Amino acid sequence: MATIDANPPSGTRDFLPADMALRQWAFATIGEVFRRHGFDPLDTPAFERLDVLTGKYGEEGDQLIFKILRRGEHESSGQADLALRYDLTVPLARVAARYGSQLPTPFKRYQIAPVWRADRPGKGRFREFIQCDLDTVGSTSLTADAATIHAVTDALAALGIEGYTVQLNHRAALRAMIEAYGIGSEREADALVALDKLAKVGVAGVADELRQREIPDVAVAALEADLAAGSDALVERIAATPAGHAALGELGALQDLVGDVSGGQVVHAPVLARGLSYYTGAVFEVVHDDLDATIAAGGRYDGLIGMFQQQDVAATGGSLGLERILLLLESRADVPAAAGPQVVVTIVDEGDAREMLVLAAEVRRAGITVDVFAGTGRLGKQLKYADRRNAQVALIVGRDEVQAGTVSCKVLASGEQQTVVRDDLIKTLRGLLA
Amino acid sequence: MATIDANPPSGTRDFLPADMALRQWAFATIGEVFRRHGFDPLDTPAFERLDVLTGKYGEEGDQLIFKILRRGEHESSGQADLALRYDLTVPLARVAARYGSQLPTPFKRYQIAPVWRADRPGKGRFREFIQCDLDTVGSTSLTADAATIHAVTDALAALGIEGYTVQLNHRAALRAMIEAYGIGSEREADALVALDKLAKVGVAGVADELRQREIPDVAVAALEADLAAGSDALVERIAATPAGHAALGELGALQDLVGDVSGGQVVHAPVLARGLSYYTGAVFEVVHDDLDATIAAGGRYDGLIGMFQQQDVAATGGSLGLERILLLLESRADVPAAAGPQVVVTIVDEGDAREMLVLAAEVRRAGITVDVFAGTGRLGKQLKYADRRNAQVALIVGRDEVQAGTVSCKVLASGEQQTVVRDDLIKTLRGLLA
Repeated sequence: MATIDANPPSGTRDFLPADMALRQWAFATIGEVFRRHGFDPLDTPAFERLDVLTGKYGEEGDQLIFKILRRGEHESSGQADLALRYDLTVPLARVAARYGSQLPTPFKRYQIAPVWRADRPGKGRFREFIQCDLDTVGSTSLTADAATIHAVTDALAALGIEGYTVQLNHRAALRAMIEAYGIGSEREADALVALDKLAKVGVAGVADELRQREIPDVAVAALEADLAAGSDALVERIAATPAGHAALGELGALQDLVGDVSGGQVVHAPVLARGLSYYTGAVFEVVHDDLDATIAAGGRYDGLIGMFQQQDVAATGGSLGLERILLLLESRADVPAAAGPQVVVTIVDEGDAREMLVLAAEVRRAGITVDVFAGTGRLGKQLKYADRRNAQVALIVGRDEVQAGTVSCKVLASGEQQTVVRDDLIKTLRGLLA
Repeated sequence: MATIDANPPSGTRDFLPADMALRQWAFATIGEVFRRHGFDPLDTPAFERLDVLTGKYGEEGDQLIFKILRRGEHESSGQADLALRYDLTVPLARVAARYGSQLPTPFKRYQIAPVWRADRPGKGRFREFIQCDLDTVGSTSLTADAATIHAVTDALAALGIEGYTVQLNHRAALRAMIEAYGIGSEREADALVALDKLAKVGVAGVADELRQREIPDVAVAALEADLAAGSDALVERIAATPAGHAALGELGALQDLVGDVSGGQVVHAPVLARGLSYYTGAVFEVVHDDLDATIAAGGRYDGLIGMFQQQDVAATGGSLGLERILLLLESRADVPAAAGPQVVVTIVDEGDAREMLVLAAEVRRAGITVDVFAGTGRLGKQLKYADRRNAQVALIVGRDEVQAGTVSCKVLASGEQQTVVRDDLIKTLRGLLA
C-alpha cells in the first residue's frame, strides 16, 4: 500500500509543542486583557450556512470561502450548503440578531478562534489562521470606538509590543474627500480601492491607478498634488465641505477620547479606507513601525447586523493580527518557550514501574509537573529523554535506592546528583526547582 | 430583502458568555492536569486531505465525514479534496509520521479541540463537539497505558467528578474469548459488534443479535449461559486458552500498575470491545454511575501510524467525553458562572467620557476588571446594565463628584453607596470586592 502524504494541507500548519507555548501564552494574555476591559467570551461554530456568509465580503472574498459538500444522498449533487467561517464578525452579527434580547445592551464580546480563507498560501499568509476579535454591539457612542482602541493597545502592551502607530480615519470623511475632489459618488468605490494602496504603491502609483479607473484627470491631478503635499492639504480640502467638517469633528472627538496610548502614537490618516466594505464610521489600523505591516485594525459597521434581521444595530470593533504579532514575538527572549515537565521519573527496573507511578503521583500532588518515562530503554536513554523534554530534574530509584528507601535527584543541567530519603524528596525538589 | 436564518447550523451551538465560563474552566483544568502529567500541547489543522481521513473509521464513520468542495475552477466538478477532522487520533498519527525524528520518544501530547461528524443531531449528540485527547506514541510499555488512565482519572478528580468505574479489557483477551466459544476468526467482527451492545440490550438481546448474525447456535448458547452467570464464567473460559491466559496476564499487570484510583473503581470488563476498529491491545472505558454513560475511553492502537509510513509505531491514549462531562458539571454550584467585569464605570455626563475612560484605566491597572458603559442612556439604565453584567460595584461621577474630586461607589447587590476621594478609590474598591 502506498503511504499517505503526511504533510498538513497546503496553507495550514501543525503546531508542535515548541510552537504551542508561545501561541497559548499569547491567546491567554490577549483574552485576559479583553476580559479586564469588560469584554465577554463568545464562541460560534466553525461552519455557517452558506447564505450566512455569501455576499458579505465582496466578490473576491466570496471566492475564498471554503464550502462544505452536502451529505448523504445529496453528496452526489456536488452542491455545498455549509461553509467554514471567513471571519468572526459575520458570525457575531448572526449571534446578535439571534439572541439580541438575551444579551446585555451594549453587548461586548471577544472571540479568539481560527478562520479559513482559500487564499493562495504564501509567506505569512495562511488558509487557516487565528483571529482575535473584540466588538461592541448596540452602541452608537464614540466611547465604544475609543474603548475598542484602548483594549487593543492594552493587549499590545501586555504582549510587550511597542513602536506602533494607530491610524484613525472616518468613512464619512473619506466620502467627503471624494466629493471635495469632484469625484461622483458612483465612482467612490473605485477611487477608494486606488487610495487604499497609497502605503504600498506611493503617490504616483495611486494617481496611475485612479487614471486607469477613469477618474477624471482634473480630480486625479488635484489629489496627486495634495497627496504629495501631505495630510494637511487633504484635510483642509475635506474640512471645506459641510459633511467633511462634521466627519472631522467626530474624528477629533474620538481622538480626544482615545488620548495618548503608551507604547505608540495616534494619528489621523486621511486616506485610510480599510478594505472591507461593511465599515460605516470611524476606522483604524495599527501599523508596527518595524514590520511596516498592520498588526491590528477595526472600525464601526452599523449596517451589517441588519442583514440578519429587520432593523439595523450599531456595532464597532477591532481585531488583532495574531500571526504577524507572533512573528514579532518569536524573535524575543522574554516570551515563554516550550514548558515540558519539571521532573522526569525514570524506571530503572521494569518491576518497580508501579512504585515509580506512585512516586510521580506524590510529587505531582505537591504541584510539580511530572512525567514518568513511559518508553523502553536503559537509564542513559531515559536521561536523554528527560533532557529532550526540558526537564530540570530526573528522579532515579535503582537497586541501592530501593534498599535504602531513598531517591536520587539528578539536576540535568549540571549533572549533579544527590540522594535523599523519601520523606525529604518534596522539600529537596522544591529547592532544586526554585 | 428576506432576512437570513440566524440560528447556528443544525447540530452546532453558539456558546454565549454564560456558557463559556464553564467550558473555558473545564478546558483549562483538563489541560493543566494533562500538562502536570507530562503531556505537551499539540494543534493540527481543522481540515485534512480527504485521503488522510478516509478508510480509518469504518464504512459508517467514512459517511459521517464533512467534505470540503474543491475551489476555483475545480468547484464546478462537485468534488471534495479536503475534509474536517473526525477525531484527533488520525491527525496525531499523521503528525507522528511526519515529524517522528523531531519529537521525543515516547511522544506524549494532548489536544483539546473540536471535531466534526455529520451525525444525525440529537439530545447530547452534536455535529461539532470538543474532544480532549492524550496519547503516548512510540512506547509498547504498559506504563504508558497506565499513565493514560492516571491522567484521565486525575482530570476527572480536578473537575470534581466521582462515582465512576474504569472498565478495562484487552483486544487479545476478546479474540481469545471468541475462539474459546468456537466462533471462527472470520466471524470475530460480527460477534464483537453484538457483544459490544451488552450494556444497552442485555444478555438476551446480545444472544438474539448473535443468532441474527448467524453465529452457530451452540456458541451462542454457551455465551448466553456464561454472560448470564457473570464475568467469572467468561474469564474462566478465556483463561483456559493459551492466548487468553497471556492476554489476561497482561491485563492483570496493567491493573496492578493502575492500582486504586481516587473517586472511582477499576474493574475487568471481559466483553468491552470499544467500537473503533483500530485498537490492538488494552482498551478502557470510564462509565459514570449516575449517567450510565461513557465519560472517557481509550486504548492501545499499534497499527494506525503505520498507515502513514513504512513501519508501525506503537501508540496508546485516551479521550475525555467533554460534552457529557459538562452535563454533569452544569448542575453543580461549585463551578464558575459567567464572570463579567467586577466594576462598571457609568458615564453621567457625555462630556466626562474621556475622564471616565481614564478612571477605568486607573482601576484596571490595579488588577480589577472594569467595563465602561459604552452605550447611551441615563444612569438608571446604566446601573441595570452593570447588574446584568454581574458587576459588583458601579462607579458614578456626577456633577457633585466632579466638583468635589470624588467618586461614588455603588454596591449593586445591596444598593449601598459611598463617596470617596479619588486617591482612596483603589483601596475602597479592594475592600468592597474582597
